[in-house]
Amino acid sequence: MDCQFQNRYAEIVASTPRRRGELTAKGKRTRDAIVAAAAELMFRNGVVNTTVEDIRDAAGVSSSQVYHYFSDKTALIYAVIEYQTDAVLGRQDPLFATLDSIEGLRRWRDFLVDHQRHMRCRGGCPLASLGHELVEVDGRARDELAASFNRWESNIRSGLEAMRRRGELAPHADPDDLALATLAAVQGGLVLTQIHRNIRPLATAVDAALTLIESHLVPVGCDGQ
Amino acid sequence: MDCQFQNRYAEIVASTPRRRGELTAKGKRTRDAIVAAAAELMFRNGVVNTTVEDIRDAAGVSSSQVYHYFSDKTALIYAVIEYQTDAVLGRQDPLFATLDSIEGLRRWRDFLVDHQRHMRCRGGCPLASLGHELVEVDGRARDELAASFNRWESNIRSGLEAMRRRGELAPHADPDDLALATLAAVQGGLVLTQIHRNIRPLATAVDAALTLIESHLVPVGCDGQ
Repeated sequence: MDCQFQNRYAEIVASTPRRRGELTAKGKRTRDAIVAAAAELMFRNGVVNTTVEDIRDAAGVSSSQVYHYFSDKTALIYAVIEYQTDAVLGRQDPLFATLDSIEGLRRWRDFLVDHQRHMRCRGGCPLASLGHELVEVDGRARDELAASFNRWESNIRSGLEAMRRRGELAPHADPDDLALATLAAVQGGLVLTQIHRNIRPLATAVDAALTLIESHLVPVGCDGQ
Repeated sequence: MDCQFQNRYAEIVASTPRRRGELTAKGKRTRDAIVAAAAELMFRNGVVNTTVEDIRDAAGVSSSQVYHYFSDKTALIYAVIEYQTDAVLGRQDPLFATLDSIEGLRRWRDFLVDHQRHMRCRGGCPLASLGHELVEVDGRARDELAASFNRWESNIRSGLEAMRRRGELAPHADPDDLALATLAAVQGGLVLTQIHRNIRPLATAVDAALTLIESHLVPVGCDGQ
């Protein structure tokens, strides 16, 4: 019994990716280089088409270094989800802070469209892309991606809630629904922008979501001010 | 030169999937069974993870039968795109005919949500799913999927154009933009519904698109009637 327990414990430890916080500065750099290479390859070629050997070669490290930080490809996949969540949301972070006005929402929309233009409409959303490959086959990956999308949505919702608190958005406007519909517009816009190789779907979809938000604005002077 | 040309011609012929129209009734049935099996496997496991052998076994045919109808996996992929386009748009066909009223648009929205409920929010959109795997690696697949999404979008646009012609939709409402934004809402809603395993994203996204369309309705009596 004890032995079985120890084996199971050893398995759990082995399958747990080494967290960045437990590493030396040099260890962190190596681990980060491996994850960045894995994220880039998985974004470009898909998760299924990316092998641990490809990642090792792209990161310029040895197999033993990869396996020092990651027990297997699955551990690498979870690290890539974390990495892409930070990358996708991190890029938008300065803009998230000003989503509490129509001007801020429009700047964010312009940023998303410009980013796709810069990407030449290729690749789509890195998080949706991981989702497509992982959601039906890996429950933990699905949970982590759902949490990433919840974070994205809550950044949009916070801005709308602030606008409603200040009386700029009508009391009947629902920040929950508007935030979810706006994120869906971004995602659907990205799907069609990638397929058509044209930024118009993304621009038009997000514009429509912002027009709906605008329709809930309280005209200045109408609330007794 | 002649020989080179002949070889090239033979290659083109070999890589062209045998079209249904050229087959006997029995041949059509066999070909259809192969394509249906391929579509099901590619939807469930992804294009990359599906081999010709898997398709052969699932369809209950021999390898020589598969290769009689399809020169290779690529030819099968194009047939699956055609099959899924007909399946996805065909399901909606009776509803497309009545997208020229808010009631018709709402019935279509309910159908999409019910279908996802029936699928237990699994799998997402079969066309977007093929797109995710093929768009960056196969130009012809991208073209064919872009054409499929154009067909879907034009069905939505036709209804809105009819409403505008009849004066029910305001003259400044743009059926092109509204149709594209509505399809993006469906696609983004499906991405989030699959990841969250919950129909709320799809329902909320399409509701938002329909609310925007509704905001362009000309109130009865306001156009002089």
